[in-house]
Amino acid sequence: WWQQAVMAASEDEKEEQELRQRFMAPPVSGLRELRRRRRELRSRMELLIMETQAEVCRALAALDPGAAFAVDTWERKEGGGGISCVLQDGEVFEKAGVNVSVVSGLLSEEAARQMRSRGKALKAKDGKLPFCAMGVSSVIHPKNPHVPTMHFNYRYFEIEEADGTKQWWFGGGTDLTPTYLNEEDAVHFHKTLKEACDKHDLKLYPKYKKWCDDYFYIKHRGERRGIGGIFFDDVDSPSKEEVFQFVKSCAKAVVPCYVPIVKKHRHDSFTPEEKQWQQLRRGRYVEFNLVYDRGTKFGLLTPGSRIESILMSLPLTARWEYMHTPPENSKEAEILEVLRNPKDWVH
Amino acid sequence: WWQQAVMAASEDEKEEQELRQRFMAPPVSGLRELRRRRRELRSRMELLIMETQAEVCRALAALDPGAAFAVDTWERKEGGGGISCVLQDGEVFEKAGVNVSVVSGLLSEEAARQMRSRGKALKAKDGKLPFCAMGVSSVIHPKNPHVPTMHFNYRYFEIEEADGTKQWWFGGGTDLTPTYLNEEDAVHFHKTLKEACDKHDLKLYPKYKKWCDDYFYIKHRGERRGIGGIFFDDVDSPSKEEVFQFVKSCAKAVVPCYVPIVKKHRHDSFTPEEKQWQQLRRGRYVEFNLVYDRGTKFGLLTPGSRIESILMSLPLTARWEYMHTPPENSKEAEILEVLRNPKDWVH
Repeated sequence: WWQQAVMAASEDEKEEQELRQRFMAPPVSGLRELRRRRRELRSRMELLIMETQAEVCRALAALDPGAAFAVDTWERKEGGGGISCVLQDGEVFEKAGVNVSVVSGLLSEEAARQMRSRGKALKAKDGKLPFCAMGVSSVIHPKNPHVPTMHFNYRYFEIEEADGTKQWWFGGGTDLTPTYLNEEDAVHFHKTLKEACDKHDLKLYPKYKKWCDDYFYIKHRGERRGIGGIFFDDVDSPSKEEVFQFVKSCAKAVVPCYVPIVKKHRHDSFTPEEKQWQQLRRGRYVEFNLVYDRGTKFGLLTPGSRIESILMSLPLTARWEYMHTPPENSKEAEILEVLRNPKDWVH
Repeated sequence: WWQQAVMAASEDEKEEQELRQRFMAPPVSGLRELRRRRRELRSRMELLIMETQAEVCRALAALDPGAAFAVDTWERKEGGGGISCVLQDGEVFEKAGVNVSVVSGLLSEEAARQMRSRGKALKAKDGKLPFCAMGVSSVIHPKNPHVPTMHFNYRYFEIEEADGTKQWWFGGGTDLTPTYLNEEDAVHFHKTLKEACDKHDLKLYPKYKKWCDDYFYIKHRGERRGIGGIFFDDVDSPSKEEVFQFVKSCAKAVVPCYVPIVKKHRHDSFTPEEKQWQQLRRGRYVEFNLVYDRGTKFGLLTPGSRIESILMSLPLTARWEYMHTPPENSKEAEILEVLRNPKDWVH
């Protein structure tokens, strides 16, 4: 058995080393701890978000030869921490951030209720609920106005109630915010997402596509933030394993959704007027994120949260003009029309 | 009496014509209606906010020879309307807006409660409260990073309860947001405000100075938006007349507070690095206004409100850099220190 144990140990070491090389930084929970509880979903999810972070960062860095991701790891006093990868002022990307966070601790009943989109009440012991929340979250703002902004986020929550019952749920989504409409890109993006969803259940894509259009709504403007994608929250059926497999398919679809679009347009020529329209759209992005986004609001109000990682989603630069209205039949009016009346891109 | 009546009528006409020339646009309530109820406070307040708008616009336009204020009047379906004066992309000012709004209609009990900083409950007939709200509100964003941003707002509310009782209160303030600290300017600004307050009650300036520091707090940054000024809300004592006279003094102080500072610095030379720091501070301005400002939040959530006038407060351009920290002992660190720990500028 000695032989076997040595072999197993060296296998483990090899795997550990491989993961170390593959990830952007050592996982928050530690590789040893993750191996110890390798069958638990929270461990598998942590590995998935680490993998997704590394995959996306490498794919983007390969598109922007002049730039590299800076990696910051941070700890949260109350438990857990995160890894922020940020590329700023590259040739292709103005600001690209891919964050992982794995936090745990105790939540008040009120905070726990707010975390779920359905606002379900949870029974706490002494008013406090042990929880664990993890996710990968990213916003990519390119320089060229013909390359759209992309956002994705995949997250997992566990909360333990007073009687020991574990509540769990997943949330996430991937969505695109172009400055100008390119139908081919829109179709490619949505089709790739649909394919990821369809592997699991044909009902998912239409449902989560609509949810996305409804969620990223800038109410005071009567506009969506972008041309959508998918969005879901508080999903806990049909089973933990099945939702995890679905989330995994979505996470794996990020690079094929987005990278071809960046490749296609990163060298497109553009005018100063097109750049200015992009800046105005960036202003709307800021409005959505600061006024409506549940994640941002929740983050800003949570003591001990890392502000720089939360506000990484904001663009490097943005613009607000009083009473700006694009001329009729212009390219600017074309995208506004789609933001006001979302379209179906795949059937 | 005929002679007298003719003379009085021509006096009235003369006055009306004078006012028409003095104001940026005809008042929302109409000059005739304002004259009819000239002794009522809401009429006197409407004339004061119109006068303040015109005074500030003229003083600013005189400082920026290349630019002029565009004047928009708008109506609110539910009752009332407003006048927005905006100067964009001038030589001295990047974006300067001075808004008047005079709105009336019915409020829900909940909305009425939220309008008062003390959140006092009001008794409604059939759940609805007739109200009237008016104010002048302004944000001035200059181009030169050595000229600070200035904001002021003076407002008046009336709400009628079920038993016919009229609740009324005033709110307002003037505050300064410099990119770089200039102690002389800070002292001048605060001293001018203190003088306006001291004419009415020596307790007002210290109280409203502190209220200003507390209100313009960007909690997630641990910073104030600027170096303060005065702020007050929900003020209904000692008497309607006395509070109005105090508000009048404050409104009259806007030009002497700010214009000398603009004059002094509008031709200062600056580096691209100083411009960039200004842009980052503009980003913080956006964060405060979209995340915390009660007026902005209330406006965005109110059906029928004019979004372009509310978001006029946002700068033309802003910037967000991940993990930006100015070097120790720099001019940038100096202003941050004051934003983190507000100072007393006059004693």
